[in-house]
Amino acid sequence: MVRIIAIDPGSVVTGVAVIEAERQRYRHLYHGHLRVKGDAWSERLYCIFREISGLTAEYQPHEAAIEEVFMSKNAMSALKLGQARGAAICALAEQGLPVSEYPARLVKKTVVGTGAADKSQVQHMVGAMLGLQGKIQADAADALGIAICHAIHRNSPIHRLGVKK
Amino acid sequence: MVRIIAIDPGSVVTGVAVIEAERQRYRHLYHGHLRVKGDAWSERLYCIFREISGLTAEYQPHEAAIEEVFMSKNAMSALKLGQARGAAICALAEQGLPVSEYPARLVKKTVVGTGAADKSQVQHMVGAMLGLQGKIQADAADALGIAICHAIHRNSPIHRLGVKK
Repeated sequence: MVRIIAIDPGSVVTGVAVIEAERQRYRHLYHGHLRVKGDAWSERLYCIFREISGLTAEYQPHEAAIEEVFMSKNAMSALKLGQARGAAICALAEQGLPVSEYPARLVKKTVVGTGAADKSQVQHMVGAMLGLQGKIQADAADALGIAICHAIHRNSPIHRLGVKK
Repeated sequence: MVRIIAIDPGSVVTGVAVIEAERQRYRHLYHGHLRVKGDAWSERLYCIFREISGLTAEYQPHEAAIEEVFMSKNAMSALKLGQARGAAICALAEQGLPVSEYPARLVKKTVVGTGAADKSQVQHMVGAMLGLQGKIQADAADALGIAICHAIHRNSPIHRLGVKK
């Protein structure tokens, strides 16, 4: 059994998920999303760090996964996305968690069967795979998808950031 | 007396400085720079967080200052810069430090007398103002300049990020 925390950092909303995986069986433990827009921007940025630190303390995951950067053409968006990623990666690294990185296309291909899947297909499929009722918030669903993607590809030599304490 | 930690985050090198200020007198406590390039990029990113956490524990600053973002046209540079800023801001916020933000032009104008000053002028002037011998590494000199800029402008209503614990 491996317990995985997955993060989908965004310049506005960051999705977070925790699952357990054993062979091809997945168990849902947590999913949620955080907003990081607003006046006290840096305070909310720190919330990402604190939230992820809290979740790692609570769930004691063994490994972490994060979405590889979708390269915006807008430098300001990229900066904000970078800040959110920096906060998330620091929180994971502080726990000594190895962090793997997966492109969005691979996450969609793994969960839905096609890299061109839209958000609603990801929402539907992660819900079905984890036996969840009701509609899952889109960024939290992406994080669940990243967690499942990592569960499946964790032993293949795909982009590993290599965070170690 | 106020003790200030200042950070000049960069996508490759992050400058850090600690000074004490009392009226118009400044005392140098620390300056240094960290490289964040390389293979285990996220590990080095976490080094920014850890280094700043260590310095705040050691020097117990009262306030923090950071350089406002120089907006790159290159989205990949902006992303990396954002990640470094995210790591730095989280470390400062974790200590409950208020973080003020200053544009590079104001730092240069405050330290050298002109917003168009080049790096060597900043290096020379912060050395002279703090009574330091020898050449100071450019990013560390920028961080010292940000610290002095904050010492002078800290009571004026200039860009305050407003991080509070």
